[in-house]
Amino acid sequence: MRLARPPRERVLASPPATSPMAFNRRRNGCAGEQKGLDMQQQISVITLGISDLTRSRRFYAEGFGWTPVFENEEIAFYQMNGFMLGTWQTEALEADMARGLVRPGAFSLAHNVSGKDGVASLMDRLVTAGGRVLRPADAPPHGGFRGYVADPDDHAWEIAWNPAWTIDGEGHVTFGL
Amino acid sequence: MRLARPPRERVLASPPATSPMAFNRRRNGCAGEQKGLDMQQQISVITLGISDLTRSRRFYAEGFGWTPVFENEEIAFYQMNGFMLGTWQTEALEADMARGLVRPGAFSLAHNVSGKDGVASLMDRLVTAGGRVLRPADAPPHGGFRGYVADPDDHAWEIAWNPAWTIDGEGHVTFGL
Repeated sequence: MRLARPPRERVLASPPATSPMAFNRRRNGCAGEQKGLDMQQQISVITLGISDLTRSRRFYAEGFGWTPVFENEEIAFYQMNGFMLGTWQTEALEADMARGLVRPGAFSLAHNVSGKDGVASLMDRLVTAGGRVLRPADAPPHGGFRGYVADPDDHAWEIAWNPAWTIDGEGHVTFGL
Repeated sequence: MRLARPPRERVLASPPATSPMAFNRRRNGCAGEQKGLDMQQQISVITLGISDLTRSRRFYAEGFGWTPVFENEEIAFYQMNGFMLGTWQTEALEADMARGLVRPGAFSLAHNVSGKDGVASLMDRLVTAGGRVLRPADAPPHGGFRGYVADPDDHAWEIAWNPAWTIDGEGHVTFGL
């Protein structure tokens, strides 16, 4: 998404002068020195609970065009921009986490594209690959352009164009206003 | 998490010879040339629905030690390893997505630490900052060491040590077996 500056916002850290890598290095360095903690602003995996691996894989492979780096009968991993996306049988995830889970969960994932026209065309591809439109693409109050598609397991994907955020050739995304 | 190789696994793409950046560049380049699509294996944002921004911010700031790059009265963004973590009032996320959401959602996030001893100490910090243990740390069948903590909005965080996956100085995580 893109944010307009509201009256009482606080930008707490300047956008990186050079790169997201430099930003994370700077943050981790400072924090680690101050408190002696593992302060890396890092998420290693996003794991989505799924019920049918073949159906899920079709959505990600034919919709987004992504290739797993690993899969077996209960899980597929996709190497993303600095972290891993996992799609795992929900029962296994529930057993691992030691609690039951429900849908649709209070979260969304976003994939940003490089141009406004790319939003609708990617949403169309995702629907062809088994997705379901939650909200057709339009311009949100905070700027840019976006729509939502649910994957076959009802997980929400925001497909967005946000000219204020940069995405480099490696897919690394940096905050901007 | 760490995976042992099961009998019928498929490793569909070799782990990158050089770096995750080279891996993503190679994948995106190949796919884009073949199909003319925006194939970047990229997630721009993970947005978690929250009910109390101050309570949520305390968990992420005092538990993980992370600093927002932006916040206003309804949302906080954290610049992560190549993407953004957003914490947004659930009602606003529901309105944006055009559907209601429930908890606990069928997903988890993971933060990997560099040593086995780091798992329990980080879990302790997260609990002190308002989290709740879902599963105390132990060794899963697939290897490594992990436990789960729910954030104040009941979103699951797996805190894991996985010696097979590499995490570079910028926090970029690469799959390994």
